[in-house]
Amino acid sequence: VLAWRRARPVREVLFFPSRPCCIEALLAEAAEPGAPARPCPCPLPSGDTALSRLVRRLLSARRSLDLCLFSFSCPQLARAVQLLHRRGVRVRLVTDAQYMGLHGSQIGRLRHAGIQVRHDQHSGYMHHKFAIVDRRMLITGSLNWTTQAIQSNRENVLVLEDAEYVKAFQDEFDRIWEEYNPANYRFF
Amino acid sequence: VLAWRRARPVREVLFFPSRPCCIEALLAEAAEPGAPARPCPCPLPSGDTALSRLVRRLLSARRSLDLCLFSFSCPQLARAVQLLHRRGVRVRLVTDAQYMGLHGSQIGRLRHAGIQVRHDQHSGYMHHKFAIVDRRMLITGSLNWTTQAIQSNRENVLVLEDAEYVKAFQDEFDRIWEEYNPANYRFF
Repeated sequence: VLAWRRARPVREVLFFPSRPCCIEALLAEAAEPGAPARPCPCPLPSGDTALSRLVRRLLSARRSLDLCLFSFSCPQLARAVQLLHRRGVRVRLVTDAQYMGLHGSQIGRLRHAGIQVRHDQHSGYMHHKFAIVDRRMLITGSLNWTTQAIQSNRENVLVLEDAEYVKAFQDEFDRIWEEYNPANYRFF
Repeated sequence: VLAWRRARPVREVLFFPSRPCCIEALLAEAAEPGAPARPCPCPLPSGDTALSRLVRRLLSARRSLDLCLFSFSCPQLARAVQLLHRRGVRVRLVTDAQYMGLHGSQIGRLRHAGIQVRHDQHSGYMHHKFAIVDRRMLITGSLNWTTQAIQSNRENVLVLEDAEYVKAFQDEFDRIWEEYNPANYRFF
C-alpha cells in the first residue's frame, strides 16, 4: 500500500525572455483532457520554456484564478485565461485603466467572453503583475503579460505555494477588487 | 548563559503606495551609527511605512549590494545606495539603456559617485527590479525605484532570506553583469 504523500510545494523562478515555443498542445490538452493530440502546423518547438511553464501553472487552476495585471496584451495567455473561464474556473481580473485601452490589449476580448474585469480610477498605476491560482499558488514578478515582455525583455516570475505569501497577496487582491467595484465609482 | 540563536529568516511583503514618510533619521543613523539624532525640519512623519522598511533592508548591507533595476529615479533610494558605497559596501548596478538617460534618473549621479553601472545593448528592456543584499537577502517585485511608483502606484515587493531564491537571482545577476560588460560591446 502506498502511503499518502503530500506533494512538495511549488517553489520556482522563471526568467525571461523565453525561448520561442508553441503552446497549442498545452491548450488543447487543457481544453479536452485525454483527446488525441493533433500536431500543430507551426514551426515552433513545443519544448520546456519559461512561457510554457507559466502557462502550465495557470492551466492547473481548478476553482479560481485572480489576476492583477498592469498590462495584458499577450494573446496566448489570454487564450489560456479564456479556456479556464469556459471550464468553469472563477476568473477575476484587475487591471490598469490607462493601459487597458491600448492597442493589442486583451481586456476587451476577455470582458466580451464574460470575464469580470475591474480597473482603477486613479492617476497612479495599478502596476502589480500577479496571479493567484486556487487561492493556493502565487505567481508574481516583473513580467507584464505582453508578447514583447515574454519574447524580448529580461524579466522574472516567482511561483510559490506558500500560505503566508499567498495570503498577503490574496488580501491585497480582495482589497483592490472591492475598492475598484464599479458601484463605488465617483464621477467627476 | 544565553544560547546562540540563529535569527529567523526574513519573509516580508511590502505593498505600495507607501504613506509619505521622512527617512532622514534612518540615513543619518546609517551614516553615523550612534550619533545624536538631529530632528529633521520637514513636516513628514518618520513612521513605519513600506518605503522606510525598504530603506532599512537596503541599509542592512555590510558587504555587497547587487541592483538590477529597470528605472531608478528616486533620490531617497539613491542616497541610501550612495551611503552604502561610501561605507565600503561593494555596489554593482545593472540598468536599462533606454531608461537610464531619462529626466530625473539617478544613474548619472551614482556613476559620478564611483558606483559601477552596466546596461544592456538590446532593444528589449532590462525590466527586472530586484536587489540582493550581502548575497543573502532578495528584494524583488513590481516596484521601479521611482518616486511616482513609491508614492502613487499599486506595487508589491517581496523580501526573502531564502538561499534557493537568492541563488537563482544571484546567478541571473552574474549572467547579466558579465553579458553587459563594456568589454563585450559591439559597435554597429
